[in-house]
Amino acid sequence: MEALKQRILAEGKNLGHGILKVDSFINHQVDPLLMDACGEEFARRFAKLGATKILTAEISGIAPALMAAKHLNLPVVYARKSKPITMPDQVYLTVAPSHTKGRLIELIVSPEYLAGGERVLIIDDFLASGATIIGLVRLAQTAGARIVGVGTLIEKLFEGGRAQLAYLDVPIETLACITSMDNGQILFA
Amino acid sequence: MEALKQRILAEGKNLGHGILKVDSFINHQVDPLLMDACGEEFARRFAKLGATKILTAEISGIAPALMAAKHLNLPVVYARKSKPITMPDQVYLTVAPSHTKGRLIELIVSPEYLAGGERVLIIDDFLASGATIIGLVRLAQTAGARIVGVGTLIEKLFEGGRAQLAYLDVPIETLACITSMDNGQILFA
Repeated sequence: MEALKQRILAEGKNLGHGILKVDSFINHQVDPLLMDACGEEFARRFAKLGATKILTAEISGIAPALMAAKHLNLPVVYARKSKPITMPDQVYLTVAPSHTKGRLIELIVSPEYLAGGERVLIIDDFLASGATIIGLVRLAQTAGARIVGVGTLIEKLFEGGRAQLAYLDVPIETLACITSMDNGQILFA
Repeated sequence: MEALKQRILAEGKNLGHGILKVDSFINHQVDPLLMDACGEEFARRFAKLGATKILTAEISGIAPALMAAKHLNLPVVYARKSKPITMPDQVYLTVAPSHTKGRLIELIVSPEYLAGGERVLIIDDFLASGATIIGLVRLAQTAGARIVGVGTLIEKLFEGGRAQLAYLDVPIETLACITSMDNGQILFA
C-alpha cells in the first residue's frame, strides 16, 4: 500500500537490530486517516473470507484492527495483557515472547467473546517473528474458532514470521513488506 | 447519546462497587460502528475548540479517541503505561491511581509528540474519579500544551470526577452520564 510505504520512508526510523520506529503515526501518535485507509485496504483484501470476528493484541494492534473492523462491519476483540477485574475467572490465556519488550507477555481473551465456530481474522501492527500472532492463533484454536486470515500493517520479511505462519494455510496480507533494514536502510519488497 | 445509553442498558453489567462492565462493546470486544458514531458525536460537540491534538491513555481510551480523531482530522497520542524501547530517554511521566487495577499506573508521553502551544482535547472511555484524566492534564501542561476540552464515553457522576476537573474551566462532554448504580441499577441523568 503506497501511502503507508511512503509514510514509513518519510517518518520511520531504523533504530538498528531490526527495530523500526513508527511512533509518529502508528505506535504512540496515530494518524487516524492513514489507519482508516489501511482498514479499508484490509477490508478489500479480506472481503471474501466470511470472517465473523477480528482478533488483535493490545496495544498497538487496536488502531488497525478497529479500522478494519469498521470497514468489514465486524466486532473486534483485543487480547489483554493483564486480566481486568471485569473478566471471569476462567479465561483463555497463552504466553508469547515479545521482541520489543524482551520478555514473555500474556495474551488473555474471555470465553465470552471468542466462541467455537467463529471465523477469526487476525489483524496486528507488525508481522516480525510471528510470535504474537501464533499466540493469538493458539487462543482462537483453544476456543474452537478457526483462523481464516492474518493481516498486518508492516511485515519484516527477514524475521521469518511469514514462514512460521505457513502451517495455517490462510491468506497473509501485509500492507508494507520490508525485505531489509541492513546498513540503516528500509527496503521494501 | 441515545445509541450508547441503550447499549449500556442492553449489555452493560453492574458488578457492584461502582464497577460497570462494558466488555462486550468497549473494553475487550469493541463495536467499531458504535465507536465511530461516538467519535462523530465528539467531533460535533468539540468542533469549535480549535484542538490540534487528541490525547488519551492506553488501552481503553484508544478506540473512542481514534474515532474522534478521524472525524476531527487530528492526530491522536496515547499515553503509554510502560516505556517502549523506541521512546527517548527523556519523557513526560506521571502516575495516577487506577480504580480498576487497584494500584498506581504510570502515564508516559514522548516530548516528540506533545509540544508547547498545542491545544489538547482529552478523550477517554470513562470519567469516574477523574484521576487518569488529571494525570493526562499534568502531562500536557508539563509539555506546555493547553487543555481545551475533555470528553468520555461514559461518566459515573457519583464518583465526582466532573467536580475534580472543574478547575480546568473547559467543556466536559460525556455521551452517557450515569447518576446511580445503587441496588444493581444503572440510572442515567
